[in-house]
Amino acid sequence: MRKVYLSNTPRREALDIFLAGVNIPRRMETVSVSEALGRVTAEPVMAKLSMPGYHAAAMDGIAVIAESTFSASDQNPLALEPGQGFINVNTGNPLPPGFDAVIKIEDLQFLDDGKAELLAPATPWQHVRPVGEDVVAGELIVPAWHHLKPPDLGAILAGGITKIKVLTKPVAAIIPSGSDLVKPDSSIDHGHVPDFNSTVIASYLEQWGLTPIIKSIVPDDPDQIKAAMISALDTADLMIIIAGSSAGEKDYTYQVISELGEVFLHGVATRPGKPTILGQINHKPVIGLPGYPVSAYLSLEWFGLPLINRYLGLPVPERPRLTVTLGRRVVSEMGVEEHVRMTIGNVDNRYIANPLTRGAGVTMSLVKADGLLVIPDNSLGHEQNEEVEVELYKPENELRHNLLAAGSHDLIIDLLATALKKGDARLNLSSAHLGSMGGIMAIGRGQAHLAGTHLFDPESGEYNTPYIRKMLPGQDLKLVTLVYRMQGWIVASGNPHGIKSIVDLVDTEIGFINRQKGAGTRLLFDHLLNEANLSPTQIKGYEREEHTHLNVAAAVAAGTASVGLGILPAAKAFGLDFIPLIEERYDLLLSGSFQKSPEAALLLKTITDPMFQSEVEALGGYSMREAGKIIEIYKV
Amino acid sequence: MRKVYLSNTPRREALDIFLAGVNIPRRMETVSVSEALGRVTAEPVMAKLSMPGYHAAAMDGIAVIAESTFSASDQNPLALEPGQGFINVNTGNPLPPGFDAVIKIEDLQFLDDGKAELLAPATPWQHVRPVGEDVVAGELIVPAWHHLKPPDLGAILAGGITKIKVLTKPVAAIIPSGSDLVKPDSSIDHGHVPDFNSTVIASYLEQWGLTPIIKSIVPDDPDQIKAAMISALDTADLMIIIAGSSAGEKDYTYQVISELGEVFLHGVATRPGKPTILGQINHKPVIGLPGYPVSAYLSLEWFGLPLINRYLGLPVPERPRLTVTLGRRVVSEMGVEEHVRMTIGNVDNRYIANPLTRGAGVTMSLVKADGLLVIPDNSLGHEQNEEVEVELYKPENELRHNLLAAGSHDLIIDLLATALKKGDARLNLSSAHLGSMGGIMAIGRGQAHLAGTHLFDPESGEYNTPYIRKMLPGQDLKLVTLVYRMQGWIVASGNPHGIKSIVDLVDTEIGFINRQKGAGTRLLFDHLLNEANLSPTQIKGYEREEHTHLNVAAAVAAGTASVGLGILPAAKAFGLDFIPLIEERYDLLLSGSFQKSPEAALLLKTITDPMFQSEVEALGGYSMREAGKIIEIYKV
Repeated sequence: MRKVYLSNTPRREALDIFLAGVNIPRRMETVSVSEALGRVTAEPVMAKLSMPGYHAAAMDGIAVIAESTFSASDQNPLALEPGQGFINVNTGNPLPPGFDAVIKIEDLQFLDDGKAELLAPATPWQHVRPVGEDVVAGELIVPAWHHLKPPDLGAILAGGITKIKVLTKPVAAIIPSGSDLVKPDSSIDHGHVPDFNSTVIASYLEQWGLTPIIKSIVPDDPDQIKAAMISALDTADLMIIIAGSSAGEKDYTYQVISELGEVFLHGVATRPGKPTILGQINHKPVIGLPGYPVSAYLSLEWFGLPLINRYLGLPVPERPRLTVTLGRRVVSEMGVEEHVRMTIGNVDNRYIANPLTRGAGVTMSLVKADGLLVIPDNSLGHEQNEEVEVELYKPENELRHNLLAAGSHDLIIDLLATALKKGDARLNLSSAHLGSMGGIMAIGRGQAHLAGTHLFDPESGEYNTPYIRKMLPGQDLKLVTLVYRMQGWIVASGNPHGIKSIVDLVDTEIGFINRQKGAGTRLLFDHLLNEANLSPTQIKGYEREEHTHLNVAAAVAAGTASVGLGILPAAKAFGLDFIPLIEERYDLLLSGSFQKSPEAALLLKTITDPMFQSEVEALGGYSMREAGKIIEIYKV
Repeated sequence: MRKVYLSNTPRREALDIFLAGVNIPRRMETVSVSEALGRVTAEPVMAKLSMPGYHAAAMDGIAVIAESTFSASDQNPLALEPGQGFINVNTGNPLPPGFDAVIKIEDLQFLDDGKAELLAPATPWQHVRPVGEDVVAGELIVPAWHHLKPPDLGAILAGGITKIKVLTKPVAAIIPSGSDLVKPDSSIDHGHVPDFNSTVIASYLEQWGLTPIIKSIVPDDPDQIKAAMISALDTADLMIIIAGSSAGEKDYTYQVISELGEVFLHGVATRPGKPTILGQINHKPVIGLPGYPVSAYLSLEWFGLPLINRYLGLPVPERPRLTVTLGRRVVSEMGVEEHVRMTIGNVDNRYIANPLTRGAGVTMSLVKADGLLVIPDNSLGHEQNEEVEVELYKPENELRHNLLAAGSHDLIIDLLATALKKGDARLNLSSAHLGSMGGIMAIGRGQAHLAGTHLFDPESGEYNTPYIRKMLPGQDLKLVTLVYRMQGWIVASGNPHGIKSIVDLVDTEIGFINRQKGAGTRLLFDHLLNEANLSPTQIKGYEREEHTHLNVAAAVAAGTASVGLGILPAAKAFGLDFIPLIEERYDLLLSGSFQKSPEAALLLKTITDPMFQSEVEALGGYSMREAGKIIEIYKV
């Protein structure tokens, strides 16, 4: 019997239920202060000794008895005898007994007979570091549940303490489940996926102050899952089981936790992250995480982090927030809290955010994310150009240096990202694959710094300028050639269908895979159809869209399509054949404000650098012969 | 011969000179992805495999051939045969060959004969995760010089990569120098100080991605320092020598670096941090850090962090900035860039910052600091109430929960800090020891949430209210009794001078140590003098001030004073004798806005909690008998 529906418990309510139902009892251990960085104190740390432990000279100079110097002046210099009248001291030396002030070396003169001559009196206790100036015995150095940073360790050692009690790191058992899972370092056969979730989850837990233990992969078998959980219970304070948390035929997590302990709830009203199970076994917290990576990591943060931070006595960190303008519409469903990963950049002193792929299976959306847009369950989402608040994954002053590249996708944009970082480590090139048309429109809306475009205009025989003139008439923009690249047919190795030109695709069962609307490559395909007097309806697969050259090649490699139009390096990445068709120009369109920036100067310097150019040409199918050439847009 | 003057090179210029003169050559090593958290990539990481590696069901349900379902509708349900017509699939299963769509379990019904009934057609490729949806072979996962976070590791493993090249952690040799230094775990004799700087510096370097090695302590001896540096050169990429960096008689760092290599500059125009030496030996960077802890840690950050981040290809992190109102005047000297550690809190929606002790020897100023005020070399500082920009050590949303306690110092404020944190982990009680009068004035200026006060009014015989009425007439404040505490004479063990009352201090050589102006304890002493018809000039040491009870006790313990007025726990902390004198009331004054906050409610709950009360009374000299009692201020 398949259980079909999960509950729709709001996220905060789910957390309250979980925290009320379980607890990790606090344990403490004694560690050396020198090894306590990043640990959390289990009790207040009070100084045992004072630092300094004695009155000490705060300057290099001489120790004197202040009262004996009161007569010194410009008119009546005072000469002090060494030994009785003064004693040489260096910074940090204990003040000799009976002396109560220090005169700086710069403020005195040594006479030939060894006496020290003063032109001004000393005041009592001047340039003396009193005992306990830094840390005084009995003083609180750091409170309980304090996350220890480098200077804390110094103050604790200065206070005469070399060992302290810290909270023991709770042990978290991570149980990866799934009959299709294999260890990441195994060879991956068809139908198998590497278990990368365990590594990510262990890394998060380690960062949060736990000791993660990754258990062996268990197949979708209730008995084996049960055995794994029982064995983990021995050592673990917290158990995390990955996948099998939904309500499918092979989802046993719910059943196993119910049998061994108690399920508090099954299903959270979020997207992604819905199929989450929260419960306990032997009073130990158990989290059943969804198998999709993004769902799993978000759910872990919602429920795991508050649990561990309650144990550590630390607040749950709140991410900084930033008001941004949406570059694209973001729709949402009523009744579900949506968590959308966003890229963010600053264009014309306005922060622009664009949603990344929403798929719960797209780990890359977290790799690329600069922030998170949380859309509450009572909202239908937000319109393009709307101002919204996002939670930041990176500090705002880092995002300020993000370069937003919109428009067409090309693999050399990745090379460019690395080269720009070499020139200025702060620069981070963030690409949205909007297609050439989408890129030009993003520039027009002031929502990108630069856009890659390769739009051929059959009428004039020109690239890009006719489109820009039409879409963004009379603006202050700069168009720069980046590269000439070869477009061609991406086909299986050996070209089994013998494809040479577009007519080979017409009215056959040979499946084509197309690019999205607005992509330059799709327009190229339409142009080829048009030239041959053909209609899209004659091409099987015309409606099937991918967003990048690599994804087109992947579909051909997987055999779900027989041919796609794209660039050589994409075919090479999959060991596919490539039938060259046409060399086209790929330009970069720079926005009005960006073209005058130092970053744009660095960009131009980079693409005209022979080192960079030979790197690009080594990929095959590229010519950098006109890279950096400025194209006049508006002169007709 | 003593070299007296150092150069005054501006900090940024000094950094440019250093970075131009030295470099750590990049080395890389191969590590397992599962161990790469926090490491920095040495080259771009491109996916080898696609994830998923095949078209997969994105939902639990059945795989179908979309074309075969086109006739299905409400009116004409379509029944598909198992096997040929449909195949059961669960999320993640490969799409069976020949099938091109998935129908969700919720959208179909299984008939008794095993057929699946549809009421609507499927569109091709619906609910199918295409090959490479997450990561596509050939795609850039992370660029070079990328600091690896948990999801990055997931995407890299998903891309079929289990080992990556990361930058090798440079080795930094830390050489602590000073004849007065001993290892922190040694017993500390008079004239010796524990070497805590090495631990702090090693901790910073570890956080920044180096491998620190703490070398043995070397005395102030040029030959031994030289030998230590030569030996460190073998393994270290960067050498840090602590102390001996100034121009005193026992400062040999300059001389040794000059002889072994080259000093680029000696002396930076900052306070603290001036006696810094930057140079190279065998083209390896050498930093001679000042011996004072705050100087050393700031200087390390100015010069060490940019060096390592250049190696790692990372930008130097910029701290977030915040505009704050200064609670106190902060003066500065022309020609010197001052770095003042600040506490920060939010009172009435305004951020208030107060300077911590400026001393370069006060590690606690870094422990307590919420932010840093950098005063440029061309400024004389800032006035009270002026708005300035500070760099934040903690995120703004953490500072929002800081409770600013001004006013009188009492040890139980530390207990209170811990107890409040127990109630709300976000709360952080930050105390400025301004004395009772200073505390009341800070409340008046809207620059503190609460202030401890114990001001006795001899005329009325009342505590606090007469002062508050006079200083802050007719305001919306709340006064709450915290504790009754015993004040008395703090004297050496055995009370060698036989002090019983204030007359024993008059016209003698017995040195008194006083508290700062505005402190309740100082006013109490003045009141005692007044009662006995005595004048301050009759008390030796009346002018010598300390800011806390513990520091008064420390001076008595060190023998530089014979008697002070203070509270019992301070005497106990140093094993001193305590002659009880008077029991006084210590109240908390709460600001207008704070008294209505949830934090104030928690404060009142805490101080009336019997557990907390017995903790306080266990310290000795305290009675909590009226804790939490509200005192009418303005009813006369």
